Amino acid sequence: MLNFRTDMALERRDLYKKANNIEKEVNGIETEEETYGENINITRVKVTSKEGEDAIGKPIGNYITIDVKNLKVAREEDIQKASEVVTKELKELIQKHVDNSAPVLVVGLGNLYVTPDALGPKVVNEIDITRHLLTYMPEVLDKDTRPVSAVSPGVLGTTGIETQEILKGIVDNIKPGLIIVIDALASRSIERISSSIQLADTGIVPGAGVGNTRKELSVNTLGVPVIALGIPTVVEAATIAADSLTLFIQKVQEQAQSNKFLNELQEEDKYEMIKEVLTPNDYNFIVTPKEIDELIENMKDIVARGINYAVN
Amino acid sequence: MLNFRTDMALERRDLYKKANNIEKEVNGIETEEETYGENINITRVKVTSKEGEDAIGKPIGNYITIDVKNLKVAREEDIQKASEVVTKELKELIQKHVDNSAPVLVVGLGNLYVTPDALGPKVVNEIDITRHLLTYMPEVLDKDTRPVSAVSPGVLGTTGIETQEILKGIVDNIKPGLIIVIDALASRSIERISSSIQLADTGIVPGAGVGNTRKELSVNTLGVPVIALGIPTVVEAATIAADSLTLFIQKVQEQAQSNKFLNELQEEDKYEMIKEVLTPNDYNFIVTPKEIDELIENMKDIVARGINYAVN
Amino acid sequence: MLNFRTDMALERRDLYKKANNIEKEVNGIETEEETYGENINITRVKVTSKEGEDAIGKPIGNYITIDVKNLKVAREEDIQKASEVVTKELKELIQKHVDNSAPVLVVGLGNLYVTPDALGPKVVNEIDITRHLLTYMPEVLDKDTRPVSAVSPGVLGTTGIETQEILKGIVDNIKPGLIIVIDALASRSIERISSSIQLADTGIVPGAGVGNTRKELSVNTLGVPVIALGIPTVVEAATIAADSLTLFIQKVQEQAQSNKFLNELQEEDKYEMIKEVLTPNDYNFIVTPKEIDELIENMKDIVARGINYAVN
Amino acid sequence: MLNFRTDMALERRDLYKKANNIEKEVNGIETEEETYGENINITRVKVTSKEGEDAIGKPIGNYITIDVKNLKVAREEDIQKASEVVTKELKELIQKHVDNSAPVLVVGLGNLYVTPDALGPKVVNEIDITRHLLTYMPEVLDKDTRPVSAVSPGVLGTTGIETQEILKGIVDNIKPGLIIVIDALASRSIERISSSIQLADTGIVPGAGVGNTRKELSVNTLGVPVIALGIPTVVEAATIAADSLTLFIQKVQEQAQSNKFLNELQEEDKYEMIKEVLTPNDYNFIVTPKEIDELIENMKDIVARGINYAVN
Repeated sequence: MLNFRTDMALERRDLYKKANNIEKEVNGIETEEETYGENINITRVKVTSKEGEDAIGKPIGNYITIDVKNLKVAREEDIQKASEVVTKELKELIQKHVDNSAPVLVVGLGNLYVTPDALGPKVVNEIDITRHLLTYMPEVLDKDTRPVSAVSPGVLGTTGIETQEILKGIVDNIKPGLIIVIDALASRSIERISSSIQLADTGIVPGAGVGNTRKELSVNTLGVPVIALGIPTVVEAATIAADSLTLFIQKVQEQAQSNKFLNELQEEDKYEMIKEVLTPNDYNFIVTPKEIDELIENMKDIVARGINYAVN
Repeated sequence: MLNFRTDMALERRDLYKKANNIEKEVNGIETEEETYGENINITRVKVTSKEGEDAIGKPIGNYITIDVKNLKVAREEDIQKASEVVTKELKELIQKHVDNSAPVLVVGLGNLYVTPDALGPKVVNEIDITRHLLTYMPEVLDKDTRPVSAVSPGVLGTTGIETQEILKGIVDNIKPGLIIVIDALASRSIERISSSIQLADTGIVPGAGVGNTRKELSVNTLGVPVIALGIPTVVEAATIAADSLTLFIQKVQEQAQSNKFLNELQEEDKYEMIKEVLTPNDYNFIVTPKEIDELIENMKDIVARGINYAVN
Repeated sequence: MLNFRTDMALERRDLYKKANNIEKEVNGIETEEETYGENINITRVKVTSKEGEDAIGKPIGNYITIDVKNLKVAREEDIQKASEVVTKELKELIQKHVDNSAPVLVVGLGNLYVTPDALGPKVVNEIDITRHLLTYMPEVLDKDTRPVSAVSPGVLGTTGIETQEILKGIVDNIKPGLIIVIDALASRSIERISSSIQLADTGIVPGAGVGNTRKELSVNTLGVPVIALGIPTVVEAATIAADSLTLFIQKVQEQAQSNKFLNELQEEDKYEMIKEVLTPNDYNFIVTPKEIDELIENMKDIVARGINYAVN
Repeated sequence: MLNFRTDMALERRDLYKKANNIEKEVNGIETEEETYGENINITRVKVTSKEGEDAIGKPIGNYITIDVKNLKVAREEDIQKASEVVTKELKELIQKHVDNSAPVLVVGLGNLYVTPDALGPKVVNEIDITRHLLTYMPEVLDKDTRPVSAVSPGVLGTTGIETQEILKGIVDNIKPGLIIVIDALASRSIERISSSIQLADTGIVPGAGVGNTRKELSVNTLGVPVIALGIPTVVEAATIAADSLTLFIQKVQEQAQSNKFLNELQEEDKYEMIKEVLTPNDYNFIVTPKEIDELIENMKDIVARGINYAVN
């Protein structure tokens, strides 16, 4: 399998197509695109068979990417519109798995004190919780209100406990019908940082994107369907460099300065070579944009509103 | 039973003695005091029988109050000294229940976004966690390192889940030998706000102090001993007013302006009367000192260091 | 002069009327009230002469109090409505002093790290700034955009510099036509905490409400008109106790348990007596409600939006 | 002049030497190195003449770089040791310009709400302020205490006012003898992010490192000597890519895959070419490491302690 260095099904499918010179669609994968206004693109990647699964290393299921342009300078109405798109896509995905009354548990992965990793806990803080009201003050709610609860389990480094262990216990006790997990992803592209949302109904392996693989959170391990809302917030320096080099050589080739060596070089995956030269220099940091605080705040509003309207 | 309006065993015992004109000690209760330097007082209240239990409404067990004076202007060395006292008392209490190798789970109750309720989550963030290292990198630790883990389960209002339900599941999965719970208490006195620590080996009823009784966290409900570290962070306005009125009438009486009515009044519990006059005016707020942010920061350092040295 | 123990002109006028058994209006003072919907009351107190000035200890000028009920549970639409009232009142007050093109400097007093004192810096962070854009990118703005700038000068305790000294220098350099100062006030009543806004066109003495009088910020000291937006965020424990005692005795009197001593007591100012009994016990804290974090967040939105629409 | 893309005199001198194949030292520049323990390196670059000034584009004066290794995993003792080095170097630099009693104003540039730009305001919050105590409570201080004050003037984008305009006014009013400015710099290398400190006695041009040149803060513009403490906190993506490419081609050349084209390429500045290919793709972000929050916290402790001991 290719080393994709991205958690996003969409980016993996594009890389797979390029690496294998596929013009149309990968076997076992279906894709459709949609555009909302000027700033929002949706791409729905569906892995339909084992063949698709093997191609991009993602299990059979639905992967919806919502790209929001110019989030750094987003106004209230841009945020509202993006949240409405999240609501619509999330609602459809939920309805594929449970009915409208099934209790939902929202899980915000990540560490509040690490800015690019703080999105999950911040979203949880904004979720409209109903489960306790249905128990203690049912009279304040509509009769058909869905029970919604939410937790931020923390990260292994600060709890000493695998997230899966924490969630397993909670799920056993409160028995939700569906889990929505919010997690930070790694992406190939800096421009996707805190500007894209991937919805997937196949669960999640927390930390996969940054090389700290934790135990899977999915219907297999938790016993209930898990929808993952992944937002890229970091990118590896070597990825930036490798992608830059590809663009750079391409430009050199176009300028007719091409030569045999460069042509050969361009066919290869430069990431491993770059990583090899960066690592001895302690240079292969994982980075995030300078504006990450504001990007996270805007994304938090989009995701929290998107979920609140989808589940209520 | 008296309406004590305080979670602190020490304050309850004092109120009980006063209300019943007891000169020496309450039956079923033993007390000892100790002083460390100028600024630290320790009072150990031991409830030894059913009679003591009924008197102050606290189960049989140990209740240690550490009062730290002038914490608002504490220097680094004051904080260090206070944390050493916490370590010593906590260590002794732990050793009454489990041996030195028993895994410990630290639980920080409370809401990070409500300043007077943020102590628990802030302490958890400073705890030295070893449980995951013992699993994944045992070579970096001493062989006899105690497994320590820590969680901030959130509060019912933002999770929709009873803390007991969350902890039950985690305890079942990770099987600690002992739980240390950090919680905010209500006190009778503003001067104790974020300046006192009560250690108790009888567990806790979260939120009891502020009238939101949640399900008990104790050996009875969780199956392992629970040591509670309670820190008063709020006080009821009616309590301030009632205590002020008591002091006030006392002064009036001393000044020989006494009369029959005042003498009768002083015998009664003025809290309910005050509450009655305050409540229709929406006036019975729960309050905290203006300096609560700094008091919480200093207390966080004391408690986190106190625990870290006690369990490692 | 009475010891009013409040910065709010409205409360002072009420106390003065009560202390002097005035049925109608105080000489030299004019008052009008207005109500917006269920939750918002406006009281406009105008000090028109030296006589009014002497009565309530506030200089000749306009004092508008906007009381917002139930801010603790405010929804987005309540916050929006309150901000519209602030805009309307503030706009009228500004127009009494400068024209629509006069440059405005917004000053947020207070300390970001002390929750009840953080409102000023938090509001400044939300102000729509135009002054630098008019200089560096005029093409992105309408031609008649008013230059707006904003600073958080910090507090004497953390800067070592009087706020007046900092502002004097800035005003000399950037020459605004009007200054809007946001400050925390002390109030008599807990229910006003972070739920009332006083607009005054007579400037401000920072910290006056909490006994740390700093140098005046007004047209006299800064050379340009100063509109103060004061929000009560703290109350003295002795004030709570004294006000409670007044309510309490009143109730006792109503219940026909009256006697000569109580009747005499009720005529007096109990604050000084209460303070005398509280002070030796280190008990006279300045307090703020437990919910201060959320109250401040909601008030920040109201004030920031209120100012942004008033000046643009 | 070379496009150095770094604010650090040390990096500029290294680049200049390389670009001009200088083996020994650049004319007009003197350099000395020192090592403290395992983790701390000091390099003192002195620009002594116009020739040195022209070479590296930095005015005549002293530039001291303190590199702290492994700050991400620093323990309390590492932080303490680093702060002692800052104190020593800063003290010597101060003594070159003013005597021990000269009032010092500490200025923290940057924006508290942008994590990689928050160092200045965070340091200011930890500075031991004496100026107001010398005025209001001189009895609590030693007679020869130096007056220390501190401000965080904010950034042009949130104040609408040039930092120089704000400081000019304050300096005119409080007349310090020396100003210490803390600012975020851009560096060439990710590994220097929040791990190096450059002391310079030639002042500063805020934002120079990230392409937002603001008005100079120096003895020329403010009338008193300005010592700048600059800490790199961001790096440009194109710089990462260009530096990676240089390392990459070097490796390719070593592996005897060299060819004429690559040899020529290696002689050139690849930054502009890289930038050209990145910019149309919106790809040339300014980035910061994922761990920036913790790096900033540790650096804040080092700098604040370093300054506090140097000026008191």
